[in-house]
Amino acid sequence: MRKILVIHGPNLNLLGQRETEIYGKITLSEINDRLNKLASSQGFQLEILQSNHEGNIVDAIGQSANHFSAILINPAAYTHTSIAIRDALSAVKIPAVEVHLSNIYKREDFRQKSLTAPATHGQITGLGVDSYCLGLQALINLTQ
Amino acid sequence: MRKILVIHGPNLNLLGQRETEIYGKITLSEINDRLNKLASSQGFQLEILQSNHEGNIVDAIGQSANHFSAILINPAAYTHTSIAIRDALSAVKIPAVEVHLSNIYKREDFRQKSLTAPATHGQITGLGVDSYCLGLQALINLTQ
Amino acid sequence: MRKILVIHGPNLNLLGQRETEIYGKITLSEINDRLNKLASSQGFQLEILQSNHEGNIVDAIGQSANHFSAILINPAAYTHTSIAIRDALSAVKIPAVEVHLSNIYKREDFRQKSLTAPATHGQITGLGVDSYCLGLQALINLTQ
Amino acid sequence: MRKILVIHGPNLNLLGQRETEIYGKITLSEINDRLNKLASSQGFQLEILQSNHEGNIVDAIGQSANHFSAILINPAAYTHTSIAIRDALSAVKIPAVEVHLSNIYKREDFRQKSLTAPATHGQITGLGVDSYCLGLQALINLTQ
Amino acid sequence: MRKILVIHGPNLNLLGQRETEIYGKITLSEINDRLNKLASSQGFQLEILQSNHEGNIVDAIGQSANHFSAILINPAAYTHTSIAIRDALSAVKIPAVEVHLSNIYKREDFRQKSLTAPATHGQITGLGVDSYCLGLQALINLTQ
Amino acid sequence: MRKILVIHGPNLNLLGQRETEIYGKITLSEINDRLNKLASSQGFQLEILQSNHEGNIVDAIGQSANHFSAILINPAAYTHTSIAIRDALSAVKIPAVEVHLSNIYKREDFRQKSLTAPATHGQITGLGVDSYCLGLQALINLTQ
Amino acid sequence: MRKILVIHGPNLNLLGQRETEIYGKITLSEINDRLNKLASSQGFQLEILQSNHEGNIVDAIGQSANHFSAILINPAAYTHTSIAIRDALSAVKIPAVEVHLSNIYKREDFRQKSLTAPATHGQITGLGVDSYCLGLQALINLTQ
Amino acid sequence: MRKILVIHGPNLNLLGQRETEIYGKITLSEINDRLNKLASSQGFQLEILQSNHEGNIVDAIGQSANHFSAILINPAAYTHTSIAIRDALSAVKIPAVEVHLSNIYKREDFRQKSLTAPATHGQITGLGVDSYCLGLQALINLTQ
Amino acid sequence: MRKILVIHGPNLNLLGQRETEIYGKITLSEINDRLNKLASSQGFQLEILQSNHEGNIVDAIGQSANHFSAILINPAAYTHTSIAIRDALSAVKIPAVEVHLSNIYKREDFRQKSLTAPATHGQITGLGVDSYCLGLQALINLTQ
Amino acid sequence: MRKILVIHGPNLNLLGQRETEIYGKITLSEINDRLNKLASSQGFQLEILQSNHEGNIVDAIGQSANHFSAILINPAAYTHTSIAIRDALSAVKIPAVEVHLSNIYKREDFRQKSLTAPATHGQITGLGVDSYCLGLQALINLTQ
Amino acid sequence: MRKILVIHGPNLNLLGQRETEIYGKITLSEINDRLNKLASSQGFQLEILQSNHEGNIVDAIGQSANHFSAILINPAAYTHTSIAIRDALSAVKIPAVEVHLSNIYKREDFRQKSLTAPATHGQITGLGVDSYCLGLQALINLTQ
Amino acid sequence: MRKILVIHGPNLNLLGQRETEIYGKITLSEINDRLNKLASSQGFQLEILQSNHEGNIVDAIGQSANHFSAILINPAAYTHTSIAIRDALSAVKIPAVEVHLSNIYKREDFRQKSLTAPATHGQITGLGVDSYCLGLQALINLTQ
Repeated sequence: MRKILVIHGPNLNLLGQRETEIYGKITLSEINDRLNKLASSQGFQLEILQSNHEGNIVDAIGQSANHFSAILINPAAYTHTSIAIRDALSAVKIPAVEVHLSNIYKREDFRQKSLTAPATHGQITGLGVDSYCLGLQALINLTQ
Repeated sequence: MRKILVIHGPNLNLLGQRETEIYGKITLSEINDRLNKLASSQGFQLEILQSNHEGNIVDAIGQSANHFSAILINPAAYTHTSIAIRDALSAVKIPAVEVHLSNIYKREDFRQKSLTAPATHGQITGLGVDSYCLGLQALINLTQ
Repeated sequence: MRKILVIHGPNLNLLGQRETEIYGKITLSEINDRLNKLASSQGFQLEILQSNHEGNIVDAIGQSANHFSAILINPAAYTHTSIAIRDALSAVKIPAVEVHLSNIYKREDFRQKSLTAPATHGQITGLGVDSYCLGLQALINLTQ
Repeated sequence: MRKILVIHGPNLNLLGQRETEIYGKITLSEINDRLNKLASSQGFQLEILQSNHEGNIVDAIGQSANHFSAILINPAAYTHTSIAIRDALSAVKIPAVEVHLSNIYKREDFRQKSLTAPATHGQITGLGVDSYCLGLQALINLTQ
Repeated sequence: MRKILVIHGPNLNLLGQRETEIYGKITLSEINDRLNKLASSQGFQLEILQSNHEGNIVDAIGQSANHFSAILINPAAYTHTSIAIRDALSAVKIPAVEVHLSNIYKREDFRQKSLTAPATHGQITGLGVDSYCLGLQALINLTQ
Repeated sequence: MRKILVIHGPNLNLLGQRETEIYGKITLSEINDRLNKLASSQGFQLEILQSNHEGNIVDAIGQSANHFSAILINPAAYTHTSIAIRDALSAVKIPAVEVHLSNIYKREDFRQKSLTAPATHGQITGLGVDSYCLGLQALINLTQ
Repeated sequence: MRKILVIHGPNLNLLGQRETEIYGKITLSEINDRLNKLASSQGFQLEILQSNHEGNIVDAIGQSANHFSAILINPAAYTHTSIAIRDALSAVKIPAVEVHLSNIYKREDFRQKSLTAPATHGQITGLGVDSYCLGLQALINLTQ
Repeated sequence: MRKILVIHGPNLNLLGQRETEIYGKITLSEINDRLNKLASSQGFQLEILQSNHEGNIVDAIGQSANHFSAILINPAAYTHTSIAIRDALSAVKIPAVEVHLSNIYKREDFRQKSLTAPATHGQITGLGVDSYCLGLQALINLTQ
Repeated sequence: MRKILVIHGPNLNLLGQRETEIYGKITLSEINDRLNKLASSQGFQLEILQSNHEGNIVDAIGQSANHFSAILINPAAYTHTSIAIRDALSAVKIPAVEVHLSNIYKREDFRQKSLTAPATHGQITGLGVDSYCLGLQALINLTQ
Repeated sequence: MRKILVIHGPNLNLLGQRETEIYGKITLSEINDRLNKLASSQGFQLEILQSNHEGNIVDAIGQSANHFSAILINPAAYTHTSIAIRDALSAVKIPAVEVHLSNIYKREDFRQKSLTAPATHGQITGLGVDSYCLGLQALINLTQ
Repeated sequence: MRKILVIHGPNLNLLGQRETEIYGKITLSEINDRLNKLASSQGFQLEILQSNHEGNIVDAIGQSANHFSAILINPAAYTHTSIAIRDALSAVKIPAVEVHLSNIYKREDFRQKSLTAPATHGQITGLGVDSYCLGLQALINLTQ
Repeated sequence: MRKILVIHGPNLNLLGQRETEIYGKITLSEINDRLNKLASSQGFQLEILQSNHEGNIVDAIGQSANHFSAILINPAAYTHTSIAIRDALSAVKIPAVEVHLSNIYKREDFRQKSLTAPATHGQITGLGVDSYCLGLQALINLTQ
């Protein structure tokens, strides 16, 4: 089973149009293209979900157990507020990597606590679209 | 009106399959069977909702006012993050009891603060499926 | 474009029926009438959303960019827990005003921290339905 | 060995006479009657201790090991200040359940931290005399 | 008695000349003109005080009881440090509204705690001179 | 009933012999003499208890209800650690005054929080034996 | 020199008219009468100051050194915010006693920290006008 | 006077039977044997007290002044909650050493604050029965 | 414009007479002589204000804008409590230096937070009268 | 200039021999081999430093400015205590990435605060040797 | 292998000359003599290091693994700031005991938190040179 | 002995080249020239040390006792993290003054706590190179 679930959290649908000084000019579909290319070049297939709904993300993770070998997730704002997503990641125990476009250590205090990271293998933050690509690569390495 | 609303919060659909060292091996449908038997033996009827969506739970509580005499709720992860569920419980003022399978006092710090409990009659924690059964019994006692 | 988006957060659908000692006896539809009258008298049109779902509110704000000139929002319980709504308001950069019926400074500690207000122009709190009307007037002034 | 030790902590001897708005009108001997009836109907025997002395309660727990199969305890004020009672409960490792008449989540901040609960199976709070009865039932279930 | 007391706290005499990036270019006398016009158009009269002295502001509030029907106050720096002004507002119990030109939620941490707001009907913040005008309108509505 | 219960908390039996730089040279029996003289001169009788046992003090307060018209208490170290004594004072609702020989505001941080004072009429601190005498006088005034 | 300076802090001029549920119905001039009678009966003379101005109170204490043998002070709201008054009391080193009408331990958290008490001999709180009379008596005892 | 008082705090009577993974398999009477042997070999006599009652420990320390030259104390749970024991140790001023079997720095946060240690000469923690023996040796060295 | 405003905050009028172990024996007029000599020797003129009134200090700073080229200020107790003085210094934007006679880092915790220093060029603390002289020299250097 | 400086902080020389349950069995020289291979395959050259001395690391960063195009750093224990390393990274402004072998979010509280990360482009944590390789790849991408 | 490494942390080279009221008059070489005598009398050999460099101490611990059977360490100031020394002690897993000359519980707050103690067997504090001798004895006991 | 030790802490070797918006354009050697000129003009000689190593700075202070009459120190980043430097300054008891180029009160929270300042005579902050010159002048004044 060489399928990886990619989850984009709230407001990432707005990428590339606004607050480009923080998040850069790349759009979500461009990121997805980059990820799809990287995955398929190594024989992996992606399923990609963007949702602003915490419940949808919890649903998706809960249903992933027998269908995916890994989860790449940018929980965005839910990183700092969602115990439900953390619990979902802990429950399914599929290897997960958390990624962030911006360096959360340079931002507001409340963005420096991650509720979800302890339920993942690791976290990559601050490297723009490379955060995603390197995170995906890490998962591919882990599941091979 | 001898109807009680039972609400299972996020990730409880995964019960019995995973993290059994914390939550035990019982599944959600087995818990529901236990609850239904207990209720019907005393002339009560249950409506049971499991949702990973905070908004669904708020909706259900808000609409419960004229249809249920009590609410049995395991808010799971939302126990610690949802002021919205707390406000919904305060608004409808139907007697509610909060239950938890595991002893939240033995777990992470953030699980020891309950935002929702102050809007309920009381809380039962740590007794596995008995938390549910005793909570249901408490509500039946209260509404009789 | 003289359209303003009005967002009512969780549990505001229950207004006027319960906890009237805190929130008063006015219903949500009466508030909406007041707002519609005020808006149309100055040549503005309103679109009004009430939702108990954080994700719906994030969706609505994210889609508002080219359709509305301002946002009037009472995030209710999400004021204190939703970084996602804050991020959505920051992303679209449409002028927004946050309103509250009750004086949050007289209530529990956790209601005195607003996660969403820093992403708005300002906040009006404690003036009942006037909080809404004055907030709408402020937005009309700002967008003219 | 079907014997259960019941411990009532400080000031519970005053029950029913004072602060009835918080603790209700039931007296301690009425509670004990309820508990005795419930126990004997299921073939269990109770030994009941009320003490205002932390040391007495620690003594009683320490000596319970070979004489009782379970402990039902309302540590009252000592819930929040006694590491000694917590250590005693941890040492004997007999299944224990902690109960409170009032909902400690609705009261002063210092009543919301339980030093003793982590050394028990679980806690039942806010259900009046039912807190005791349900706690006893839980212990009977556990030890059968 | 259709008289309203308007109080401008410390440093507001310097408005319009300095730190215009935070407070705007409007001067205090221009604000007062706007307020006088708004009041007189609805049959109200204003008495306006600007003082850098906490004691003067406490004096004025204490003496207002039989002479004014409402108080509009921008306590400026004293918002965050003066229990004396809070106590004065609580003592006289005339309806009061607190206003701020800038959005205090976007500024230093110590500006986000208001000692005075709990003694008022409500607070309006971040809307520039509109904070004053809307606050005055709220008081006129309240006292009519 | 003109009887007042006087309670001296832990270590006060050692008064006058040690740490005289903090507590002065007066002994406990000299203090009791002063109190007895003051009481009898106004037709009151005292019962005096010194105990190092938190439980004894809780017992004494709990049994005082029908036998004393007031309680003068120096809870000493238990001031800062005993919720049980606080609850006892709240339960009996006899007027009580808390006294301290030394000025607790000049000492360690942990001595500046009183758990017991909120359950009394008031507190007198720092005036040496006068703290006791003035506290007794206050109770005599209150109960006349 | 048998003269004592009595200082009433901010808002105490309003005593007896408002918030009588907290402060009682006695007026400031009635308190002053009580104090004058008590002082003159023991050969002492009082000088009494009420001010809402922190600076006035600091001035008065600073000038008291050669004219008064003791200071009786109710710093009211400045108890919790004025390091300047504390420093003035420390500088003149005349014996001082701090008094409060209400029991500050039963009120808001911020009223339970006294910045001024460490610079006094002691504090009397919660005994209404008796707080003043007993405080004055303590000073007379101290200075004789 | 070559007599040393040894005090074992709450639950130490249970040593060796339970929680042996934390406290080891040695029993209290074996520890006492080790201590007696060590003391008598250097011409010292021990009096040994085990009590679960804070009051008993305070009593014993208070009465030790003229009968013992040193105190060896393991306050166990009272280390972290008893200001009364701290005050007793400060009052008698006999050299004291505090000992703990387990390394309190490896355990729960609340076990890392010692209220009693500042009233002793020093503390030995984590060395099992050696904590006691080395502590006794330190006292013998100090009093010779 | 070679004029510098020198502001001495509360209680500095008492310098040299009291608490000489903290502040030294120099009087305020001796300090002023030193400062005047230093200023005039470099062609600068001083205007010197001592006030115990926060409002006076705010007034003086607010009016200084067109009359002084720099401000030397020892805010004394107001250093730690006055946002109003901070805001005044920020508003006028004249170069200011804050000075303290004693080393505030060796004193109470509350003296180690400066509310005013962020609105100045810098702070000099602990060097007695040299704090003033060096601060004045720094301002002369800055404005030349 | 295609040279990258690699810095291994304190205790990383012990890798692979101990605490392999946390850090894995790979040795530092194996990591260095992996990094050298990755670098040279893309035309980059590495200079590698391991030091237990904070000062050495500060020296190395300070001297790197004209010799390296990027810095890959695992500050290990200094991540949480060294402002000096943070300041060095800020000073030279060469792109840097911080890496950790273990997931710091799953470990002690004090390991979850990074003093150094805000001075870097980003951080990769929890992915074992992949943390290093991905971090190096990110720097190569950044500097190309 | 009967060799023990003794590490003296920063500033201990200055012992006996200064701050003798805190640390006593004994010099470091006198302490070393005492330790050497004690060790050799039991067939143990010591290697003794004093360093003010955190890095040197980390180096020494890291290299100790195959050469020493135990470590006696007084980390001095680094006790409270060095995670690197803690990690080194954890890595090598040789039995270690931490000692302090003065009673750290009687000193500043920041000296009461030990970062290094959790990586040792135990800690001895406050007993002067006896802290060292008893610590060495404990290690000899442990390694025999 | 008219010799003064000047210590520049970590990263100050980089002065003038980078982060000039915070630290200015002056280089360390230009500062040293200024200091040497100032010293020699008053008959003083300087020894100047720059080090990024905490241990070197501790060494230098510890060896300064008989060779220098004063210490001028800019501990830079170690100001906020080094108890070892504080202890060294306390041990040698030579008059010391701490200086900072930038105003630490305008920077990150962690830069506003000085661990080293309590061991010095005083601190000068925010005045650029003048912080150094004025600090040196203060030491010359102190030692003359």
